[in-house]
Amino acid sequence: MGSVRIGFIGLGSMGAGMAANLVEAGHAVTVWNRSPEAARPLAAQGATVAESASAAAAGVEVLHSMLANDAAVRDAILDGGVLDALPKGAVHVNHATISVALARELAEAHDRRGVGYVAAPVFGRPAVAAAGELNIVAAGKPEAMAKVLPLLQPLAGKVWPMGDDPARANIVKIGGNFLIGAAIESMAEASALVRAHGVPAKDFLEVMSGSLFASPVFKTYGGLIAEENYAPAGFKMSLGFKDIGLARAAAEAERVPMPFASVLHDTLLEALAAGEGDLDWSALAKVAAQRAGLV
Amino acid sequence: MGSVRIGFIGLGSMGAGMAANLVEAGHAVTVWNRSPEAARPLAAQGATVAESASAAAAGVEVLHSMLANDAAVRDAILDGGVLDALPKGAVHVNHATISVALARELAEAHDRRGVGYVAAPVFGRPAVAAAGELNIVAAGKPEAMAKVLPLLQPLAGKVWPMGDDPARANIVKIGGNFLIGAAIESMAEASALVRAHGVPAKDFLEVMSGSLFASPVFKTYGGLIAEENYAPAGFKMSLGFKDIGLARAAAEAERVPMPFASVLHDTLLEALAAGEGDLDWSALAKVAAQRAGLV
Amino acid sequence: MGSVRIGFIGLGSMGAGMAANLVEAGHAVTVWNRSPEAARPLAAQGATVAESASAAAAGVEVLHSMLANDAAVRDAILDGGVLDALPKGAVHVNHATISVALARELAEAHDRRGVGYVAAPVFGRPAVAAAGELNIVAAGKPEAMAKVLPLLQPLAGKVWPMGDDPARANIVKIGGNFLIGAAIESMAEASALVRAHGVPAKDFLEVMSGSLFASPVFKTYGGLIAEENYAPAGFKMSLGFKDIGLARAAAEAERVPMPFASVLHDTLLEALAAGEGDLDWSALAKVAAQRAGLV
Amino acid sequence: MGSVRIGFIGLGSMGAGMAANLVEAGHAVTVWNRSPEAARPLAAQGATVAESASAAAAGVEVLHSMLANDAAVRDAILDGGVLDALPKGAVHVNHATISVALARELAEAHDRRGVGYVAAPVFGRPAVAAAGELNIVAAGKPEAMAKVLPLLQPLAGKVWPMGDDPARANIVKIGGNFLIGAAIESMAEASALVRAHGVPAKDFLEVMSGSLFASPVFKTYGGLIAEENYAPAGFKMSLGFKDIGLARAAAEAERVPMPFASVLHDTLLEALAAGEGDLDWSALAKVAAQRAGLV
Repeated sequence: MGSVRIGFIGLGSMGAGMAANLVEAGHAVTVWNRSPEAARPLAAQGATVAESASAAAAGVEVLHSMLANDAAVRDAILDGGVLDALPKGAVHVNHATISVALARELAEAHDRRGVGYVAAPVFGRPAVAAAGELNIVAAGKPEAMAKVLPLLQPLAGKVWPMGDDPARANIVKIGGNFLIGAAIESMAEASALVRAHGVPAKDFLEVMSGSLFASPVFKTYGGLIAEENYAPAGFKMSLGFKDIGLARAAAEAERVPMPFASVLHDTLLEALAAGEGDLDWSALAKVAAQRAGLV
Repeated sequence: MGSVRIGFIGLGSMGAGMAANLVEAGHAVTVWNRSPEAARPLAAQGATVAESASAAAAGVEVLHSMLANDAAVRDAILDGGVLDALPKGAVHVNHATISVALARELAEAHDRRGVGYVAAPVFGRPAVAAAGELNIVAAGKPEAMAKVLPLLQPLAGKVWPMGDDPARANIVKIGGNFLIGAAIESMAEASALVRAHGVPAKDFLEVMSGSLFASPVFKTYGGLIAEENYAPAGFKMSLGFKDIGLARAAAEAERVPMPFASVLHDTLLEALAAGEGDLDWSALAKVAAQRAGLV
Repeated sequence: MGSVRIGFIGLGSMGAGMAANLVEAGHAVTVWNRSPEAARPLAAQGATVAESASAAAAGVEVLHSMLANDAAVRDAILDGGVLDALPKGAVHVNHATISVALARELAEAHDRRGVGYVAAPVFGRPAVAAAGELNIVAAGKPEAMAKVLPLLQPLAGKVWPMGDDPARANIVKIGGNFLIGAAIESMAEASALVRAHGVPAKDFLEVMSGSLFASPVFKTYGGLIAEENYAPAGFKMSLGFKDIGLARAAAEAERVPMPFASVLHDTLLEALAAGEGDLDWSALAKVAAQRAGLV
Repeated sequence: MGSVRIGFIGLGSMGAGMAANLVEAGHAVTVWNRSPEAARPLAAQGATVAESASAAAAGVEVLHSMLANDAAVRDAILDGGVLDALPKGAVHVNHATISVALARELAEAHDRRGVGYVAAPVFGRPAVAAAGELNIVAAGKPEAMAKVLPLLQPLAGKVWPMGDDPARANIVKIGGNFLIGAAIESMAEASALVRAHGVPAKDFLEVMSGSLFASPVFKTYGGLIAEENYAPAGFKMSLGFKDIGLARAAAEAERVPMPFASVLHDTLLEALAAGEGDLDWSALAKVAAQRAGLV
């Protein structure tokens, strides 16, 4: 595919690497970020820096956004004029992890404006984003998807299409983040158990993540737990709390009891109350160890 | 290594395949099982069939046992005369998943008798045992371990040595089984969530077990949940309940709160109360779906 | 105290009895309800019926409101013009069970308007309201409280003053409703336990509510559980779910882990998913019995 | 009724007061306790002091025992010769809080010996025992019950007969102790919630225990929580943990999921791990406050 006129809004630790990969792929990328320093390396790489989010959206064929949460998406896209600035016929690719409720609202708002909408939340930590190896779950109308899928290749190890309804991609992302949180809490409790019986967590976790659970989540988080390496955070407790909150809100909306999610909620809340919101959420293992009197 | 005189007690769905692999490896294997039919295929393969468990232990260099639970191990090894029948200097390799308390008692009893003792619990379902691809966690005194490790090769994809104290292997096994149960419950809740939002569990689980969670446990149990394929069971609810009970007993002994284990306990108990103890424990997904009104 | 010009908004099963007691006490009461039939018995008793909520507020010395939830309060008082219609110097007595967040917002809005504000949520079911025997928790500025306390006498068995800040009364009410839900779930689980061991729930609950737990909550809900008398509801599952939600929101805002509240949330959600939202919330005992295979 | 020859085994903080009330009632009481000092005040009051538990049982018409737990009961009654020492036709009144399983075993053992057996566990703290105001739940065969009920009058505010099967009294006691634990945890969580919103626990608990929850359990434990008065313990965390364990064992035996009991288990375990096993179990409120960062 040839060069496409792309806007990219949100250059945090994830978005910066993603935008860089789009520039690298030869597209004409206009970027914007709330704090402008984040745009400099991209400018050096050849991106155009816009004065505002709306300016980054004006005239593009495709707009990517990678914003932090529901509030940031609502502020920028709906209230801040970005959707209004998009040309009719353009497509907005929303990479944020947002609530199902907002996902539905956004899909309708884009429809009314005649702008395509693809929900494309991503799995992967910043280094994976920079390497262009994200797992991207994408859903939207066929025409919009056809336009967007080639653009996702430089960002993704794999793209997982999930059908026509954008909200489907969001619920898969929300369910996936719950699975990660539950995997961490599982390792946290099991590690406290084996430690209390004299086996270092590291020995236990190496067996597990080297055999039955050999997978990125168990290797990554198992490694952090084994080393008690909770700061600086790759993904903060406070963000984990937000994501479990998205799962619980989606569960409540459709009346799905999730007792593991309730345990995660209470345990993360305890960590936040203890002032540990800035630790990596693998520090659920710290809470489990404290409860067992191990620290 | 040359041919070793081996006894093998317990020819259930796991033990039968393991014993066959020892015969296949060229050892002189004497087998015994409570119900004698299970021994026939092994006899046809060249094994000697003993009249009693004690007879299978007499005169061996190494005795393997693969019995169902604490009670079966206590009955056969301690109360049934097997330990007394073992020659001094022989080594007993206990593959069963047993409590930490019994593990300690067994280690002491073997010591007093001058018989070596290696705890070598295994991870893997029957097909994996038959293929000689188990993950085996093994612990015991160096001399006993040195004798046993070569014999484990034909049984194992990988052997994970865990030090001198046999109970260390058992707590790792117990912790690992808890991790499996927690992974199933996590997938069960997440699947109910996405289904309630219109995404088939299969679509969701394929993304997860094909990316961040690409590992045997998530692929195996994710596949069973996706297909709602709960019978015949590879590993029954009732056995899962027993294994979570081992984790909870070990946790209580050392005062380790494990709220996920408590949720698993209550949920498995609900399944048993509903008469579903013979389903595969992936049917935790059935409980989660019922609670959400999805079935 | 002499006759006071009172407005009363919200004549549901609770409000109707409360308003009747104010009329009975000799005050000049103007009432309003969304569905006008509820006002007729009060008109027959001597109340004036207003055309609108705002009309019921115009010219009063004190306005009572007994509305269903946050949304109803916001609609009527803030968005529907009631606050604007209140004379400066009047006092609004809000009997609703609402969130702490809305409580704070209302206190500020009344302050800005120069209208007094007393939060006065009530404990008691409809028969208790009709009998004028409610327990009322009341908080607000001293001047407003002084004006309102005499008016609460005909409604209350006892008034519990909670200080200057109206939100204090609301958090006490929210905590109290959580205590009621937890008492029901406790009786539900204990009843399932004794039933499974052959003791009728009634025999057990009579001992408990006749001795250590001799109190209105245990007698009332214990009686409903003993008789499995869940319909018609005195207080619906769906309302219990709302109230536990208020407790959980208040807990989350201040980072208070409440694992019992999480269990209540999941159990009530299961009942709602099963279509039992209209049963009395004592039917938590039905859920507990079902989980134990007792029904 | 005239004077009865009574033995009394177990003069702890509960048993001492109970035995004193039997002496006071004019019966010929022979007492025994493991540490003999506890018998001295009773000797001064007119009781005979036996040299052994068996000696206290020899020749009596009725034997009361008030021992600490399953192990103590098994040691003394079954293994220590007390049952063998009882005359045929005598009745043993067992006041201990024991498991349902041991209750059944004891009933059968007494039957075989031709000795009557009444399970008569008690509700009440030491001061209540001393005052002769216990609530006693009693079950056993009609003949044995007829003999025993008059003797319970000086001990009890009220006796609650529960039928022929002694185990029925034990499951009611176990269910009741669970209810007490759940009430404490409920007050603990609610108190943390209101405190986090600026309301002292005392203010909240006075409303509750003075209105909807006006009952001994809420007044007693509510008072301890309000004053943070956790030592010396009236009833220790470690004993509460034992009692919740009895409930959980009875629940597991009949497959009754009890999620509140699981929360209590995990929370008490956390307190024990923190070295707080000797605090009163009202200190569940301390755990809840710590989790919320309030202390």
